[in-house]
Amino acid sequence: MATLVCFGEVLLRLSAPGFEPLLRSARLEARFGGAEINVGIALAYLGHRVRAVTALPDNPIGAACLGELRRHGVDTSGVHLRPGRQGLYYYTAPAQLRPAQVVYDRAHSAFALAGADHYDWPALLREAQWLHLSGITPALGEAPLAALQSAVAAARAQSVRISFDCNIRRSLWQGREQQAPTLLRPLAERAQLLIGNADDIEALFGGARLSGSIAEQQQQAAQSAFAACPDLQHVAATHRLTHSADHHTLTGLLCDRRATHVSRAFELDPVIERIGGGDAFAAGVLHGLCGNADAQASIDFATAASALKHTLPGDFSTLGAADVEHLLQGGRLDVRR
Amino acid sequence: MATLVCFGEVLLRLSAPGFEPLLRSARLEARFGGAEINVGIALAYLGHRVRAVTALPDNPIGAACLGELRRHGVDTSGVHLRPGRQGLYYYTAPAQLRPAQVVYDRAHSAFALAGADHYDWPALLREAQWLHLSGITPALGEAPLAALQSAVAAARAQSVRISFDCNIRRSLWQGREQQAPTLLRPLAERAQLLIGNADDIEALFGGARLSGSIAEQQQQAAQSAFAACPDLQHVAATHRLTHSADHHTLTGLLCDRRATHVSRAFELDPVIERIGGGDAFAAGVLHGLCGNADAQASIDFATAASALKHTLPGDFSTLGAADVEHLLQGGRLDVRR
Amino acid sequence: MATLVCFGEVLLRLSAPGFEPLLRSARLEARFGGAEINVGIALAYLGHRVRAVTALPDNPIGAACLGELRRHGVDTSGVHLRPGRQGLYYYTAPAQLRPAQVVYDRAHSAFALAGADHYDWPALLREAQWLHLSGITPALGEAPLAALQSAVAAARAQSVRISFDCNIRRSLWQGREQQAPTLLRPLAERAQLLIGNADDIEALFGGARLSGSIAEQQQQAAQSAFAACPDLQHVAATHRLTHSADHHTLTGLLCDRRATHVSRAFELDPVIERIGGGDAFAAGVLHGLCGNADAQASIDFATAASALKHTLPGDFSTLGAADVEHLLQGGRLDVRR
Amino acid sequence: MATLVCFGEVLLRLSAPGFEPLLRSARLEARFGGAEINVGIALAYLGHRVRAVTALPDNPIGAACLGELRRHGVDTSGVHLRPGRQGLYYYTAPAQLRPAQVVYDRAHSAFALAGADHYDWPALLREAQWLHLSGITPALGEAPLAALQSAVAAARAQSVRISFDCNIRRSLWQGREQQAPTLLRPLAERAQLLIGNADDIEALFGGARLSGSIAEQQQQAAQSAFAACPDLQHVAATHRLTHSADHHTLTGLLCDRRATHVSRAFELDPVIERIGGGDAFAAGVLHGLCGNADAQASIDFATAASALKHTLPGDFSTLGAADVEHLLQGGRLDVRR
Amino acid sequence: MATLVCFGEVLLRLSAPGFEPLLRSARLEARFGGAEINVGIALAYLGHRVRAVTALPDNPIGAACLGELRRHGVDTSGVHLRPGRQGLYYYTAPAQLRPAQVVYDRAHSAFALAGADHYDWPALLREAQWLHLSGITPALGEAPLAALQSAVAAARAQSVRISFDCNIRRSLWQGREQQAPTLLRPLAERAQLLIGNADDIEALFGGARLSGSIAEQQQQAAQSAFAACPDLQHVAATHRLTHSADHHTLTGLLCDRRATHVSRAFELDPVIERIGGGDAFAAGVLHGLCGNADAQASIDFATAASALKHTLPGDFSTLGAADVEHLLQGGRLDVRR
Amino acid sequence: MATLVCFGEVLLRLSAPGFEPLLRSARLEARFGGAEINVGIALAYLGHRVRAVTALPDNPIGAACLGELRRHGVDTSGVHLRPGRQGLYYYTAPAQLRPAQVVYDRAHSAFALAGADHYDWPALLREAQWLHLSGITPALGEAPLAALQSAVAAARAQSVRISFDCNIRRSLWQGREQQAPTLLRPLAERAQLLIGNADDIEALFGGARLSGSIAEQQQQAAQSAFAACPDLQHVAATHRLTHSADHHTLTGLLCDRRATHVSRAFELDPVIERIGGGDAFAAGVLHGLCGNADAQASIDFATAASALKHTLPGDFSTLGAADVEHLLQGGRLDVRR
Repeated sequence: MATLVCFGEVLLRLSAPGFEPLLRSARLEARFGGAEINVGIALAYLGHRVRAVTALPDNPIGAACLGELRRHGVDTSGVHLRPGRQGLYYYTAPAQLRPAQVVYDRAHSAFALAGADHYDWPALLREAQWLHLSGITPALGEAPLAALQSAVAAARAQSVRISFDCNIRRSLWQGREQQAPTLLRPLAERAQLLIGNADDIEALFGGARLSGSIAEQQQQAAQSAFAACPDLQHVAATHRLTHSADHHTLTGLLCDRRATHVSRAFELDPVIERIGGGDAFAAGVLHGLCGNADAQASIDFATAASALKHTLPGDFSTLGAADVEHLLQGGRLDVRR
Repeated sequence: MATLVCFGEVLLRLSAPGFEPLLRSARLEARFGGAEINVGIALAYLGHRVRAVTALPDNPIGAACLGELRRHGVDTSGVHLRPGRQGLYYYTAPAQLRPAQVVYDRAHSAFALAGADHYDWPALLREAQWLHLSGITPALGEAPLAALQSAVAAARAQSVRISFDCNIRRSLWQGREQQAPTLLRPLAERAQLLIGNADDIEALFGGARLSGSIAEQQQQAAQSAFAACPDLQHVAATHRLTHSADHHTLTGLLCDRRATHVSRAFELDPVIERIGGGDAFAAGVLHGLCGNADAQASIDFATAASALKHTLPGDFSTLGAADVEHLLQGGRLDVRR
Repeated sequence: MATLVCFGEVLLRLSAPGFEPLLRSARLEARFGGAEINVGIALAYLGHRVRAVTALPDNPIGAACLGELRRHGVDTSGVHLRPGRQGLYYYTAPAQLRPAQVVYDRAHSAFALAGADHYDWPALLREAQWLHLSGITPALGEAPLAALQSAVAAARAQSVRISFDCNIRRSLWQGREQQAPTLLRPLAERAQLLIGNADDIEALFGGARLSGSIAEQQQQAAQSAFAACPDLQHVAATHRLTHSADHHTLTGLLCDRRATHVSRAFELDPVIERIGGGDAFAAGVLHGLCGNADAQASIDFATAASALKHTLPGDFSTLGAADVEHLLQGGRLDVRR
Repeated sequence: MATLVCFGEVLLRLSAPGFEPLLRSARLEARFGGAEINVGIALAYLGHRVRAVTALPDNPIGAACLGELRRHGVDTSGVHLRPGRQGLYYYTAPAQLRPAQVVYDRAHSAFALAGADHYDWPALLREAQWLHLSGITPALGEAPLAALQSAVAAARAQSVRISFDCNIRRSLWQGREQQAPTLLRPLAERAQLLIGNADDIEALFGGARLSGSIAEQQQQAAQSAFAACPDLQHVAATHRLTHSADHHTLTGLLCDRRATHVSRAFELDPVIERIGGGDAFAAGVLHGLCGNADAQASIDFATAASALKHTLPGDFSTLGAADVEHLLQGGRLDVRR
Repeated sequence: MATLVCFGEVLLRLSAPGFEPLLRSARLEARFGGAEINVGIALAYLGHRVRAVTALPDNPIGAACLGELRRHGVDTSGVHLRPGRQGLYYYTAPAQLRPAQVVYDRAHSAFALAGADHYDWPALLREAQWLHLSGITPALGEAPLAALQSAVAAARAQSVRISFDCNIRRSLWQGREQQAPTLLRPLAERAQLLIGNADDIEALFGGARLSGSIAEQQQQAAQSAFAACPDLQHVAATHRLTHSADHHTLTGLLCDRRATHVSRAFELDPVIERIGGGDAFAAGVLHGLCGNADAQASIDFATAASALKHTLPGDFSTLGAADVEHLLQGGRLDVRR
Repeated sequence: MATLVCFGEVLLRLSAPGFEPLLRSARLEARFGGAEINVGIALAYLGHRVRAVTALPDNPIGAACLGELRRHGVDTSGVHLRPGRQGLYYYTAPAQLRPAQVVYDRAHSAFALAGADHYDWPALLREAQWLHLSGITPALGEAPLAALQSAVAAARAQSVRISFDCNIRRSLWQGREQQAPTLLRPLAERAQLLIGNADDIEALFGGARLSGSIAEQQQQAAQSAFAACPDLQHVAATHRLTHSADHHTLTGLLCDRRATHVSRAFELDPVIERIGGGDAFAAGVLHGLCGNADAQASIDFATAASALKHTLPGDFSTLGAADVEHLLQGGRLDVRR
């Protein structure tokens, strides 16, 4: 059982019921989620102490969000209530030939306006083993970027290891695509764990043109990252084949400086929920690293955790380690009674 | 049957089911509404040609809003789709001792960013008898204010009468309360119909300290307005006694330069929906003025229309004139079959 | 515990959720009900053996209706499945100043097309003490009228007492208002129990112009009915003051040839459901007569049963005698735990 | 952007929630739809001007239907409100081994009773390029048949092209199966575009016994139609393999007088909604013909539009051309953000 | 049409909406079901007279359960209302890689406390051809076991054939696994029809170690049972391959003393509802035996009935024989209209 | 801001939607609540540190309950997960003339089986100012009684003040009504704050027969309590007039050894939710005592908090002190925007 700190924005997610287009009926499902906090909640259900660090609006929406984080077992003493709005996004669920669609409405949020001054990182990181960050935060503006840089500095000062998920969301960088690598690279360079596929890593660290199988490409990309980042110990990624909007094949890859470990492939058919699948994977990798599992066991666990997350509606993974083990060990899938 | 143009922002309204606090369950009711367009939709159901003028985001939320406006029978050829976000508000329904609560999240909306250049007022006002505006628009920023000023100028140039509802929402003027009268007064001065209670009018036009009965106070305030505005012909207002959050007594007042006409008082117990009650009243007054009804008949109709609107969930009044007449004439309230 | 037979049409009732106008959202509540069968179901919950006689379409809608009747404890062996459609009505719930509205869509139903040949009345009435009928059936066309006449003849042949609820629904007689008294009177003349207020009875039997209090008017009307119908023993009615669409005052009246018995007045505020209130009253009167309760006890029970039915959504009263007694005896209204 | 007129009945569709049998719970989903108007709405979302021509009851159900048509962007000035009932159908959704089931209840509807006199075709067809009709209307009775014949005559007089979808629904012709070809053939003969598979065409025009592949059979059938109809330019059809109630393979075929063009096959697994798939196809073909796309591009677009419609609940296709192009071009099916 | 008696507990089943974890939202779906009564209800829809025998609490939950049983057409005169609680279970639906989960809360129920004295078996079994029992009842405690033993004795005395479904639910025998065979074997020995797969039968009757194909193993197991039970005529079982939690392959096997009959394999993809699938199978076998169908026809019908049940939410099969025949005969799976 | 500990059972509450009878539709609303924890949650929203002490089943229902407690801001480190079932109750909402009804199903719960050994009271009470208990716990069996006695002893040893709410639920003492005073009195004698009306106190401490006004009776009863309990400082109670099941008048009374303080009377019309009203009152009194408010201010605050709680669905009060002050100070009840 480790102590981990997750820093990022939590959004209100508004989606239509079932497969309906947005606002066809006068009803929205309203859930909360955000890449980094999703990782935190998944880790809490896996048995770890997790501190959520974010900023929320000081109004009933922020209060509801705070309650939801508490409900899922993360420590919210590091959540900051301040003036501003709740960032949100509208989500249309995928349906076979029709891809899911996200419309962001997160500019000017309480989080987007909170800079380095708003966070007391030395206190927030006290007794933590890991700090989990992602590439979304730098995309949200100068204030969050500054807050992130200050978190990284404090983590290094306190010997807290850094996990960094590239999470390059093109729509958030629109109009300043060139900046992304420049801003993200120095952050990634501080990480012990980097989560990103070959494209992400190439975007950040360049390197020779990739070729060969998925595992070989990931291996090559990871080598570029290891070369660029002296502290980096692991690079992890999922590979997702998208046969249709709700039928995927998922494989996990974990590279250390010696080798690339590939998980079994999971058929996800149907996918109940796509959102949060990558975050459950990141949580699974961290769970393995925290428990000193070997690399193959870690990537198997992480990929199974991610696969299983695809059966749960909403951003959050509420799976226990026993649920993941049951799947990994080929436990029966008929009714358990 | 007249032709009227309504200009203002349409918001997405997100509210909890039943009497629940916001986001207690993971579900929101999602409706659209906005003071000026509410007036337009009520007028459409009363049988008039109504042109809605607004700006909406060019995304699925704006498209859904546009469809909803069309559904309710207003002409949407004057609705402008452009980049930006959908303004919205969170609404907690009232419950006896607990007042309704609105949390606005409308800054930076597509409407708030659309200025005078975005509207071709001479075309939009073609063949119209009335242009309906409100004091909300100037509160939303410089761009909407400029658009409004340009609408007023065009209306006067084309001899379109102006109806102006003061609608002073304090939270929208927060931090610049002093500006409100300065910005609103010149707009109100151009109106033939002014909708506002004694407080609103005093805020705009000053005048002697009010005293006496509600009707007398309204009469005195109206005189200040008539004195300040040479074109003004009618001042209308509702008076609402709030016994509890869902038990009100509603009376309507209509002043012309000669007299003040007071409607019968309606007991609203329980109020099913408070929002949109004032807009249905404004529509009722305009309906009377368009039909050349006498002042007493107009205020009776408008107040009954408003009272009846309180029985309909959502912002929009979908009542026909026959429904209002049924109430006015004391029609039976048992099942109609 | 008596055996009673109820004959009439069962309709599918389609209504909007909450206080919404019809089809504002893409959802309808779907319940079943019909005046005569409502009486039967109320009687079943009061402990009697009840046989439902009706015709339903031989399709999934009829099958669902049949299941619903069975669920509520009436014997459905007398229900007839045949080709045709399910009669239905659209219902908009009342809301304070806005009355409930019924739109019938029941022409050409399986019931409306089933004539005297479709019912084996001697068998259907076996061992019954009462046959309950209403004035709705003759309004539905020649086939139901013939079926009703044949039921009346069989009942008299088998000494089954007849209860007849006038239930004059004006919209069902539209265009042939003159026929109603001509068709209904001979049926009413065969009854031992007639349910109808002074207006209904005057419509059927004429008589001197009514005057005086409600009780006096009902007394006068009842005398006309007693004069015209040698077998008639009781005339019952409710008197309903409609303060608003969901605030009523309800009083019951029961006349025998000697006197008029008046119940206490019940304030119904708010009315949860108006439909089926009269049917629960009829069931209450029959319950009293079956149990040889005295007239005052009968009208008290029946009116309390009707008042209490106004708290139950849907057509059906599922109240036991103990629930009614609790109300009659002034039992406490705070939580029972 | 063309102008098209669609004529046909709009029905209220009542269905159980999820996979439940009809009326297992007291709730129905209520949507509107009808083959010809579905085509019109799909065309409106593809960017065309569409005039809907139909008759609806002059009551709240008809008003709600009218609002729904407006919402989806068709011009409803040609919709006729008149006395009568709303035609409807009950729908049970398919579930793997259990086929969907439709129970019609549409006899005696406002549309079924409106004959040629109720439509001013010369005005309704003004400036139109296409009139879309189907074989359902003649099945509904003499009045709709007469209205249809009069529409065809006016279209030819005004040089409006006719699109005719055979749509032979056996249950609507029950008891008069022989009449179908006799009534439908003269209508089909006037069309420039005929939509029907080989069986439909053989039923109308006879011809040699079909053999060979699906494409060859369709080609042979189309030749019979071309031979019989001098004005006919295109014959289109979908071919659907039904592996289970919610797993289909869909292929489109478009014949002109020279050749048969076959689309790629789409796996629909799972089908979210089967209803309206053929109508989206018809709209896609018309879209191609209006835009002078070549035959292969037209059938590819139409089949993709139909395939994609199977992911949308309800009768209506609300897809834009860009959505269809995304699918055609193999756009990625993972979340778009 | 036969008369059958089904004896067992009916539980309230509480489940989360859709694929949500239990109690994520503040809403539960509440249905009733129980292995033996499920068999009874399926038989009622197949056209048989079915008597349900059980004990329910004498409170509103028991009353609701009773109404639900009546609704589905079983005779409830043998249902016993007595003090106690309603047994219940919490159910989490399966989702692809995540198995369904049952949490029982049925100890101390009204049924669990009702012993042999509470049932008048000679009367309850009057005119019955079959008594259906299962291995769940003996697991519930001494009182239900005694009631079951008394039922078996009465059945044998009245020459009512016994159908016994092993239904060994491990969690119900927790801590006394050794007792299960000892208690179940004497009951199974009295049966004419035994339902259980090779594992179940081996648990009860031992026998040589099984080998070979599924059919061969079932055949071997059945021979052990036939050897141990002189009255036994048929042994039936389903074989279920669980590819994922909602994709199964289902095959049925029916052994008589001469041979083993194997049905066609049904792909269940997706499974809408797993619960009640075995009970629909049992009902199908009994339907075949009651109708003197040959063994192959019986197992084909029973397996198709079970496969089709997997498309219906809830415990109960409401399929008619025609629905099953449609599937067996390869009827089309596209919309039936 | 004080630290308080609340000890008691948390139940799952299952209720029908709206005003429906239980299980009329296949849906239940599922919330959690329990008298003592309700007090704790109300206190948490009023700004205090609250430790919840209870035992929950170690299964998904207990886990969901635990999450819900966390969500509402109480410290759950003192919640104990152990084998057993979740206690629950079925709730039928009140409707005007029909009282709410509770059917308990809480015997044999995890809480009911956890005795003194399961709680480490010295640790659980560390740094607490108050321990809140109620008369429900001793009614649940010997184990909870022992746990309660041990809590009382520890509290006295650690100088933690005790608040004791009599909460005599007759149905929980059924068959052993005589024991209630014997068991409850020694617990009440240890309290600094006793919550109970005159009847409750008379039941525990006897005393002269009460007479006079409500305030006088409460005063007399309180004197008996003060006489019997040397440490007792305050006695508090609400007085509730029940005009109908959803129209109450609520008054609060607070006695110290010198005087009785009476709050203003609140009209609750309509009551949205009755459950939890008393617990919000208790929390309000404790809030006053913790803040050293004077007695009149305390009873005013507590009664307003209770009145306002009646507008919130569910057991829990989520009101902040500002909400209560707004009501107390006669803040406006129209929309707050």
